[in-house]
Amino acid sequence: MNAADPNEVLKDEVLKDEATLQLDAHGNLRHLLTLKGLDKSLLIDILDDAQQYLTEPGELPARGRSLVGRSVANLFFEASTRTRASFDLAGKRLGADVLNLDVNTSSRKKGESILDTIYTLEAMHVDIMVVRDASAGVPAFIARHVLPHVSVLNAGESDVSHPTQGLLDILTMRQHKGSFENLAVAIVGDIRHSRVAMSASHALSALGVGELRLISPPVLAPEPDSVPGARILDNLEQGLADADVVMALRIQRERIGNLDGIPGIDEYFANYGISYESMKFAKPDAIVMHPGPMNRGIEIEGSLADGPQSVITQQVTNGVAIRMAVLDRVGNTMAPR
Amino acid sequence: MNAADPNEVLKDEVLKDEATLQLDAHGNLRHLLTLKGLDKSLLIDILDDAQQYLTEPGELPARGRSLVGRSVANLFFEASTRTRASFDLAGKRLGADVLNLDVNTSSRKKGESILDTIYTLEAMHVDIMVVRDASAGVPAFIARHVLPHVSVLNAGESDVSHPTQGLLDILTMRQHKGSFENLAVAIVGDIRHSRVAMSASHALSALGVGELRLISPPVLAPEPDSVPGARILDNLEQGLADADVVMALRIQRERIGNLDGIPGIDEYFANYGISYESMKFAKPDAIVMHPGPMNRGIEIEGSLADGPQSVITQQVTNGVAIRMAVLDRVGNTMAPR
Amino acid sequence: MNAADPNEVLKDEVLKDEATLQLDAHGNLRHLLTLKGLDKSLLIDILDDAQQYLTEPGELPARGRSLVGRSVANLFFEASTRTRASFDLAGKRLGADVLNLDVNTSSRKKGESILDTIYTLEAMHVDIMVVRDASAGVPAFIARHVLPHVSVLNAGESDVSHPTQGLLDILTMRQHKGSFENLAVAIVGDIRHSRVAMSASHALSALGVGELRLISPPVLAPEPDSVPGARILDNLEQGLADADVVMALRIQRERIGNLDGIPGIDEYFANYGISYESMKFAKPDAIVMHPGPMNRGIEIEGSLADGPQSVITQQVTNGVAIRMAVLDRVGNTMAPR
Repeated sequence: MNAADPNEVLKDEVLKDEATLQLDAHGNLRHLLTLKGLDKSLLIDILDDAQQYLTEPGELPARGRSLVGRSVANLFFEASTRTRASFDLAGKRLGADVLNLDVNTSSRKKGESILDTIYTLEAMHVDIMVVRDASAGVPAFIARHVLPHVSVLNAGESDVSHPTQGLLDILTMRQHKGSFENLAVAIVGDIRHSRVAMSASHALSALGVGELRLISPPVLAPEPDSVPGARILDNLEQGLADADVVMALRIQRERIGNLDGIPGIDEYFANYGISYESMKFAKPDAIVMHPGPMNRGIEIEGSLADGPQSVITQQVTNGVAIRMAVLDRVGNTMAPR
Repeated sequence: MNAADPNEVLKDEVLKDEATLQLDAHGNLRHLLTLKGLDKSLLIDILDDAQQYLTEPGELPARGRSLVGRSVANLFFEASTRTRASFDLAGKRLGADVLNLDVNTSSRKKGESILDTIYTLEAMHVDIMVVRDASAGVPAFIARHVLPHVSVLNAGESDVSHPTQGLLDILTMRQHKGSFENLAVAIVGDIRHSRVAMSASHALSALGVGELRLISPPVLAPEPDSVPGARILDNLEQGLADADVVMALRIQRERIGNLDGIPGIDEYFANYGISYESMKFAKPDAIVMHPGPMNRGIEIEGSLADGPQSVITQQVTNGVAIRMAVLDRVGNTMAPR
Repeated sequence: MNAADPNEVLKDEVLKDEATLQLDAHGNLRHLLTLKGLDKSLLIDILDDAQQYLTEPGELPARGRSLVGRSVANLFFEASTRTRASFDLAGKRLGADVLNLDVNTSSRKKGESILDTIYTLEAMHVDIMVVRDASAGVPAFIARHVLPHVSVLNAGESDVSHPTQGLLDILTMRQHKGSFENLAVAIVGDIRHSRVAMSASHALSALGVGELRLISPPVLAPEPDSVPGARILDNLEQGLADADVVMALRIQRERIGNLDGIPGIDEYFANYGISYESMKFAKPDAIVMHPGPMNRGIEIEGSLADGPQSVITQQVTNGVAIRMAVLDRVGNTMAPR
């Protein structure tokens, strides 16, 4: 086969069937590429597994030995500190040897192709590839080309998807709200460019969430019909009305004031910022979420992020547990040892 | 609370009380922020612990299991190879999972605040934060905000303090000179900008050193009264006269010849360089120290650094042992496992 | 001694006697600096050891415990992803603590000397130094200055040598061809600047290879007599005629079209590219090798690299096994534990 051209990766035939690609012949999770199309029962199983990896602050973190002897590569073609650290700790706490490779995209273009990098790691007995990439379709493209025993985990894919983030988000909601049927969830911010919003939407949809609202300035709204069942709104008061869960998204500072229809920082905060003021529209016991890193004072009020309604650090804790649950699960689909 | 503004960190109320902040309710070491104000008995205990982590070259390095299951983050906001490597090995040799995060200050300003980074790591069950920063007050600032079971270790703080360096320095002196009461210690170089000189001075003062002399060109002398009990000198012959210990400091090449009163390299070496020639003023059995990395031929004569009086590589060996002793000690103050 | 000046390292007296320097008093391998001058029996022993570290894809990679408690530093003064990853995994799979230090050459010149870096690591009980450097003579220079129990492994040295690559190449040939006596091996490309070609030639020469041909445009031919016994050719058809093994070398894109006598990419591929077309000259069961990373379409046809004659990913797998065998071997010459 030829070298992977990131531009080719975008082709339709590559993007389709991600959901089926990620299951093996027995219906077990082999790759984690997207939450779109995953069964509710599988999602619940992952949440249940992750729940068992949680311990109290100050206690030793949960550990396991299911990846002892296995090698995991964190292949980050896009910079990340927190997601990389989360996967790094998750792998080490399951006993894996973890290889951290930070490869920026420009050097990738000059050097060898993505696939040659993957084949090289595969030949070194790296059996789990954790991939973050700024191009859509790269994780699925890799998954189509690896050996039958190798697993690919999507750690953030362009504006498309960030499945472990979606899982940690629904785990956090379940811990506070129990079930999803009667829940009103409001996601606020740059919906159009948010892989976080996409993956949360996929998961909430599979779980039969009561109501999903996506709130943004019109210019940052999602494509119509890109999120079936969601209500698209541009008014924060309507969006947060009686919401149980309010998730603020990180907005790229470069975007603010530089796109038609996006105001400056102060106006953005006034109209779309999640604050003690705007939280009055939501239910009194609503929880506040944010995927991090936060722009305090832009998309979220700093003191709210540190206040009693905030579950933001709990999301981080859940992130490690979710990644352990997923690593453990794909490790189990590998050849018997 | 609000995000940490590095400039705010400098405020007086943050800098005071570091010494008490670093002990828990039982007087045990919880953080290591500064040597200033630490009890002599605690310092001696740490030296005694470190001494037990020393083995001969070629033997296996000393190891322990007290941090098995714990996670340590090396959070270096200022570049470092040797201190980072020393903490990395110290953590691994005690069984910890070590996360290396090199974050430069400029990206820190663009991205999330220091505290949000800390809260994120804390939420990932990272219980020991090893922090190096170019701004004064950052380690104490962090220590004030972490959860009760989390420990912060200062791995180099602006011009203020470098406590593990101070500990390894006094361990090295004790190994060669036994006790401190009758010792004359001369520290030579850019005293004004040296966290190494500050931490060594704090420790030597607590141990009741016989005589402490700080020798530098006048423009690089410390603030008057910043080091109580020390003699401030600008003449190398007087400073080294009958000294038992001579410690050369690294001078930033950028400073030489660029500040009023600082001569060029040759003149600096002639007047303040530690050499076979200048060591004639000191006692015949005086030891030569340097924190590294050395500018050979500027602040120290290369062949002297490699000669029999030099204990410079022994300082490095002691550095790993001191860091193991400190990691082990703060690990013990954490919640029971 | 004085600080290492990389320019001084090139002096003749430093380069000679590498072969004897790397053995200890009992003839055991202490350093791996070059394959030149190594005994056939020692080479065979290393291949036999490496063979035992191979497992099937999907199985757990081979592991050992011979380096538990030892510390290995990967000291890469020249960037590398695959060789660094290979040594990293090899060290971890033998139980070592691995320290990855990527130090670029420019910072080395500003900062401390090579030897001071080495003395520092040595003082931290790092007993195995894996060194890659763009200057000739650096690994041997370091090996001359380390303590008696410390080992230095050359992970790529300028245009001079890359011994673990040479070992993995001959292991791969042996797996497919059995013995070397009747083998015709053709190495094609930028021979003049290739440490890969040099180390393969040294090894093949020691093993009594039937015929060694080095094929390149005249301007990229090796110095006359630099590879005793090899045939130097500039015609691909003659070079590949009835060859059993064909190894394509990576060519630096900067060189193509920028040196007198080197054509553009298309002409280079037409005249020196290893392709289905050019492979017709070789034996039908000839194997195709490449050290990676590949420039597909320049020195090698992409589909050939992925086809049945290619053993390129097997080379990568063998690379980890060879590095484990070498690490294990030098670990055994260290002081008893």
